[in-house]
Amino acid sequence: MTKKKVLVIGGGFGGVFAAKALEKQGRGKLEVELVNANNYFVFQPLLPEVAASSIHSADAVVPLRQLLTRLQVRQAEVMGIDFADKKVIVVQGARRVPVNLHYDELVIALGTSVDLNRFPGLPEHALTMKDLADAHRLRTHVIGCLETADVTDDPEVKRQLLTFVAVGAGFSGVETIAEVRELVRRALKYYHNIRTDEIRFYLIEYANRILPTFPADLAAYATQRLTIHGIEVLTGVGTKSATGTAVELTDGRIIPTSTIVATIGNSPHPLVATLGLDMKWGRIKTDRFMRAPGHDGLWAIGDAALIPLADDPDDDPMLYATQTAQFAVREGRQLAANVVARMNGKELKPFAYTSKGSLASLGMSKAVADVYGIKLSGTLAWLLWRGFYLSFLPGFQAKLRVGINWLVNSVMPPNIVQIQSNPPATRYIHYRKGDRVFEPGMIIDGFYTVVKGSFRLIIDNAETGEHFEKVFGPGDHFGERVLLSSSLRTGLVVAREDSIVLFIAQKAFTRLARAFPILDVYYKEYIERTFGGHDKAFAPGSTSHKAELETLP
Amino acid sequence: MTKKKVLVIGGGFGGVFAAKALEKQGRGKLEVELVNANNYFVFQPLLPEVAASSIHSADAVVPLRQLLTRLQVRQAEVMGIDFADKKVIVVQGARRVPVNLHYDELVIALGTSVDLNRFPGLPEHALTMKDLADAHRLRTHVIGCLETADVTDDPEVKRQLLTFVAVGAGFSGVETIAEVRELVRRALKYYHNIRTDEIRFYLIEYANRILPTFPADLAAYATQRLTIHGIEVLTGVGTKSATGTAVELTDGRIIPTSTIVATIGNSPHPLVATLGLDMKWGRIKTDRFMRAPGHDGLWAIGDAALIPLADDPDDDPMLYATQTAQFAVREGRQLAANVVARMNGKELKPFAYTSKGSLASLGMSKAVADVYGIKLSGTLAWLLWRGFYLSFLPGFQAKLRVGINWLVNSVMPPNIVQIQSNPPATRYIHYRKGDRVFEPGMIIDGFYTVVKGSFRLIIDNAETGEHFEKVFGPGDHFGERVLLSSSLRTGLVVAREDSIVLFIAQKAFTRLARAFPILDVYYKEYIERTFGGHDKAFAPGSTSHKAELETLP
Repeated sequence: MTKKKVLVIGGGFGGVFAAKALEKQGRGKLEVELVNANNYFVFQPLLPEVAASSIHSADAVVPLRQLLTRLQVRQAEVMGIDFADKKVIVVQGARRVPVNLHYDELVIALGTSVDLNRFPGLPEHALTMKDLADAHRLRTHVIGCLETADVTDDPEVKRQLLTFVAVGAGFSGVETIAEVRELVRRALKYYHNIRTDEIRFYLIEYANRILPTFPADLAAYATQRLTIHGIEVLTGVGTKSATGTAVELTDGRIIPTSTIVATIGNSPHPLVATLGLDMKWGRIKTDRFMRAPGHDGLWAIGDAALIPLADDPDDDPMLYATQTAQFAVREGRQLAANVVARMNGKELKPFAYTSKGSLASLGMSKAVADVYGIKLSGTLAWLLWRGFYLSFLPGFQAKLRVGINWLVNSVMPPNIVQIQSNPPATRYIHYRKGDRVFEPGMIIDGFYTVVKGSFRLIIDNAETGEHFEKVFGPGDHFGERVLLSSSLRTGLVVAREDSIVLFIAQKAFTRLARAFPILDVYYKEYIERTFGGHDKAFAPGSTSHKAELETLP
Repeated sequence: MTKKKVLVIGGGFGGVFAAKALEKQGRGKLEVELVNANNYFVFQPLLPEVAASSIHSADAVVPLRQLLTRLQVRQAEVMGIDFADKKVIVVQGARRVPVNLHYDELVIALGTSVDLNRFPGLPEHALTMKDLADAHRLRTHVIGCLETADVTDDPEVKRQLLTFVAVGAGFSGVETIAEVRELVRRALKYYHNIRTDEIRFYLIEYANRILPTFPADLAAYATQRLTIHGIEVLTGVGTKSATGTAVELTDGRIIPTSTIVATIGNSPHPLVATLGLDMKWGRIKTDRFMRAPGHDGLWAIGDAALIPLADDPDDDPMLYATQTAQFAVREGRQLAANVVARMNGKELKPFAYTSKGSLASLGMSKAVADVYGIKLSGTLAWLLWRGFYLSFLPGFQAKLRVGINWLVNSVMPPNIVQIQSNPPATRYIHYRKGDRVFEPGMIIDGFYTVVKGSFRLIIDNAETGEHFEKVFGPGDHFGERVLLSSSLRTGLVVAREDSIVLFIAQKAFTRLARAFPILDVYYKEYIERTFGGHDKAFAPGSTSHKAELETLP
């Protein structure tokens, strides 16, 4: 008898527990494979602690192959699903050849995604907290802010650098701002030029209180703790827009900051959104057995699925499985039983589960918990929270290692090592009216194209007394000096309104100009049109970049 | 009395020990500041172990601020030095404003850099081992190779993925290949589809034996140990060139591989090379007191400096301080004494030191050592090697933490978590004659411009039986489908000779086309010229990418 192939796509709580249970319950009859974009499982609730260096990143994730030793794990990106031919198309490795994976049963457990597009500037200027890379990015960013704040002479810049804002006060937002505050507090003794009273933390929530899914008294306790520790909690106010130097709230307040962490904008996984499945509230509608109707052998679980807990749930969110790890784990197990039952011609069981409670860490070894109806807060709740994670780790070895590391880390100086990463070569940058894009004396780093809004360029030549001004609108460029050998800006560019530019970093732009000699011609004409010729004052000069372009790599 | 300002640029062994000693010996009289591009000190010899996950990255580096608590540390990039005005120009943080740092005494301790340009393809396709980011990159890369090798169906690709090559067999090359082998060996049990006999390791050295600075019998022992562990040691052969899929040796051998680690190509620090100082062998010539002649208050130490150990050393390398940590530490201390002596009008002392020996780790808890003339090999040497590092760590706490982590890690399963990072948006790719750039059915990922050499494009339409061929030379482009909505390649592109392309990733290219509508016009003409019009068979199609470009970010 050939084994039936079960494919699980997505390696979060739902996918991992489904795959594990499928392998166990179907041993000998099922061939189970799990596909995930990363080769590790992320214990997402611990990401804020990774960002704060409270724990090693290796202690918040588990390699999927170590979690699922008896089944095939494939690190690959899912490109599409062919429901008719029952195959999943994936791409793996550096060689971009699509690979078809046949399935008899397919479990979609892709979770959800983040979409910040409703908030102008937030997609480009906010950090998120979904994956391990996000945690590393936040950590590196916060340390970088401290490094620069310690040596800058500009009070305005220092204020931005020392203001940390979290948008969204669910579990993730609360934990993140608490942990960032912890990192900053512990690191501070190494930054001699930063005073405690120069640092600001904000937690911004659109609802009327933080932790909206929590009992009100626990949320009040959490608010109190955060406030005691210098975190300003702003509720009943939303986020309107963001730039690289500030966040604007719906009440018109503008908070100057270099650090915005957004934990809002939950949205369907991009692939799930395009599958043409019956969706509701951005989730795949399933029956009570977690089958997605319309296709043979298709199941959905976890945050990606909308699983009814009653026969006619209609629009009552309480009658659907909630999007938590607790539920996903139970769904995964029940799903495995149903898949095996289906194969054996037995009856399927509807999914049923009642939450045992919830936990939120507040950093500083404190947490709030509501478990089996019992409310806890403080250190005891925090120990419970840590214990819950340890219990999940596979094997005694891993538990011991993580446990020891936690102990060791707790008595150590914070790890303020900043692993720098290169910013992307092309990116969109938002500016608010009056913001400076660059000013005379700045190092030239790239080239700007106006996408939306407008900017004013002002050049004053101190020697000759000459003055040049020009307005740039959509499609116009500025910062052409990137193509010249000169290294400092001579002009001031200010946003005339809320605007967006496309920024292309110097290296990428130079390479591009090389790929397209046509740009050279275009550039000459553009200079002619904009500045009235290369020989005119303030023209960015001749195409002296040619020599550079002609050097072979 | 105003304090004298001593600026130390570079945070390696030399810089750190100089700064520490300067602060101590000059307390009250000197203001010491250390400038470094990273905010941490790297214990470079441990990087291969970080790459192999044998130790946490945090245990191979120490934040400079924790190492130098009593002086100012500045994370900044040095842009230039104005010797006449006695100031160093640096750039720090995201705001690209140059900052001038005045000095009375300047210590250049910038170390050396890597320049692989003598080997075509090596700069683009080899990994290096200079910094913490390099170690992370290598680790991620090796794990990625295992992930793909476990699931690929292509034997040729599998062979490349499972072949690991280190170029250069000094300390760093030997340790790196030994540690990579260790990582692969330990990780293997989680990759069910990879057999041990499919994996190959090579260590390539131009000299006639490995570890050229070591006693011959110790090098022989090391060679023997590496060979026992399946590492093929090739001596007396150099590296000629590299591509993304192979390395070519000077004897004509071609080794198919996805992983080349280069520990060769030592060269002056880019800034040091442009200072106009008196240089020899790529190092700043100093007098016996470590002063760099020609400028007031200028000193140089560490790998960047060429410090004579005798009055007339001429061309005898043995009469100069060697480029090792041991020497750098002594130089730093002696330099501090000399700076203070100069300030007090006392006599300076010439630098004198004799090496106490050297150590090289061979991975697998083995090492070779030559200490005070006593030769050691095996586990004892390895313990000595670890002990040396511990002794260097600042404070008992740090020693304890690292010691515990080493113990814990040694009994743990290897960390095979792969933190993926995005490849750069523009990059040069080398191809050997006959290499395929892409083939029909591959996912479209970017756009190619020929920089050097030539390529043949072949399109066969199975349905119509039509056949199209074209040769592309320097300045030509291929892969235009990146601009269309279609997602798979239809053509085969093969290198006709050894060639180089500039690759621009899809996202960057689309953004670019948006910034320069002129590219659209150019592209139309190009299609016309190349394929004879959009309506012709095999033409990449109309400019249907416009819709995409018009979407706001």
